[in-house]
Amino acid sequence: MKYVSFVRPDGQAAFGRLEDATVYDLSAGDNAPTDLKSAIASKTLRELSDGDSYSLSDVTLLPVIPNPAKIFCVGHNYESHRQETGRDKVDNPSIFTRFADTLIADGQPILRPKVSTDLDYEGELAVIIGQGGRAISQQDALDHVAGYACFNDASVRDWQWHTRQFTPGKNFPTTGPFGPYMITPDEAGDLSEVNVTTRLNGEIMQQQPIKDMIFPVAQIIAYISAFTPLQPGDVIVSGTPGGVGAKRTPPVWMKPGDKIEVDIGPVGTLTNIIEDEPA
Amino acid sequence: MKYVSFVRPDGQAAFGRLEDATVYDLSAGDNAPTDLKSAIASKTLRELSDGDSYSLSDVTLLPVIPNPAKIFCVGHNYESHRQETGRDKVDNPSIFTRFADTLIADGQPILRPKVSTDLDYEGELAVIIGQGGRAISQQDALDHVAGYACFNDASVRDWQWHTRQFTPGKNFPTTGPFGPYMITPDEAGDLSEVNVTTRLNGEIMQQQPIKDMIFPVAQIIAYISAFTPLQPGDVIVSGTPGGVGAKRTPPVWMKPGDKIEVDIGPVGTLTNIIEDEPA
Repeated sequence: MKYVSFVRPDGQAAFGRLEDATVYDLSAGDNAPTDLKSAIASKTLRELSDGDSYSLSDVTLLPVIPNPAKIFCVGHNYESHRQETGRDKVDNPSIFTRFADTLIADGQPILRPKVSTDLDYEGELAVIIGQGGRAISQQDALDHVAGYACFNDASVRDWQWHTRQFTPGKNFPTTGPFGPYMITPDEAGDLSEVNVTTRLNGEIMQQQPIKDMIFPVAQIIAYISAFTPLQPGDVIVSGTPGGVGAKRTPPVWMKPGDKIEVDIGPVGTLTNIIEDEPA
Repeated sequence: MKYVSFVRPDGQAAFGRLEDATVYDLSAGDNAPTDLKSAIASKTLRELSDGDSYSLSDVTLLPVIPNPAKIFCVGHNYESHRQETGRDKVDNPSIFTRFADTLIADGQPILRPKVSTDLDYEGELAVIIGQGGRAISQQDALDHVAGYACFNDASVRDWQWHTRQFTPGKNFPTTGPFGPYMITPDEAGDLSEVNVTTRLNGEIMQQQPIKDMIFPVAQIIAYISAFTPLQPGDVIVSGTPGGVGAKRTPPVWMKPGDKIEVDIGPVGTLTNIIEDEPA
């Protein structure tokens, strides 16, 4: 199954099931959860009745989960990206965080901030947590996954590198495109051979199969839940392959008018255009 | 004025004004905000009517702001701590984040996690944001401060140092003691000569005046608001002086039964005991 968060034609925020190019509203019933995160938490997602249906082109998408409590990003999780950034091998995943107000939907513009031109892309697989927990074992970890989505961990590189802590460069508003939909693990199937592909104005900039992750998803979930409780709707952005703009010669920065796409086969294609932050 | 978040004797979460050892409930009125963060956001804090009053010893304190949307921590913000950690001088503050579920109140136990014994203290001044904003100028920054409180940025050092990103070691539950109260800037007065003092079982481990910060509070607010919007109730934990346990020879780790205090003169004294995480 595929699920989306969206704005109904009447302006109301909602969530629904996506089938081909039709969105079936799941949030209209009397006791229906108010958003996709709550629906995941209540474990009722597959039982909710279809309300009105809309053509996908008639609704405005929201970030897959507009309001996650916690967003974790994994640094240097593909060997090709570790090598291009010159990082040492480590025994544990590198974890930094994003605030939810950085998220945007498929089709929304990424705003290049006034304070920098060093705006880079990072195509990544996002993992959405279903059942929460603490100290989840690696063996059980994939049972805690509600679904997958595409993510662009867009980065303001000079601000990311002000110090060793990545927080500033990873938290400018609109730098977290997340969508277009969440696909459930059963429908996604085995993703190990699926490529994470990032295209800038149609040109492939990053492309590597998910099996090349240094720390696979189950290990990341086990590691994170060892230090912090996971809740339904939390998001883990699992790292980017080599080929980022910053490590090219000369560097490639995204600029107004550019089109950036993250394509992960059955997980979908996430497309955003760059605009300058309004004056 | 001093404000606290607390649990009433009837079990209800509330907030109030602290005068000497008496708490005046400000959350009982018909249209009163539900928590201190909302009261700060509504700018009604000084106009709310006193409800019932309680002896401070009869209520259970909560973290000053139990539910901040964003918690920023500043790394290496005193020269003495920068030197003991061997960090290069930088032009901008180092910013990492905490989740709100790490916060505990004055008097609650810090739980030493099962997965580590490297539990360290960091006494710090916490800044609570009043009016929010983006791209706040350094000149206007202090107008955005609702108040100050003590914070212990307790750290699980081995997990902090798994990679360069501090997230894991700074986000174990109960490692964010925050309290006992918020003091408003007018009542706090000039804090520049006031010491941040950390005592472990009565012995002074850290002591340095607030004027020794490398990046003063106004500059930190300006920097953070350049990349992310600040909201009422957001918390900035402004860095710790030299003297952390990890950099002593041999290292000093907090262990069950230890008493750790962060004393910042008029900002109060925050006291917590260490316990082992239950099996």
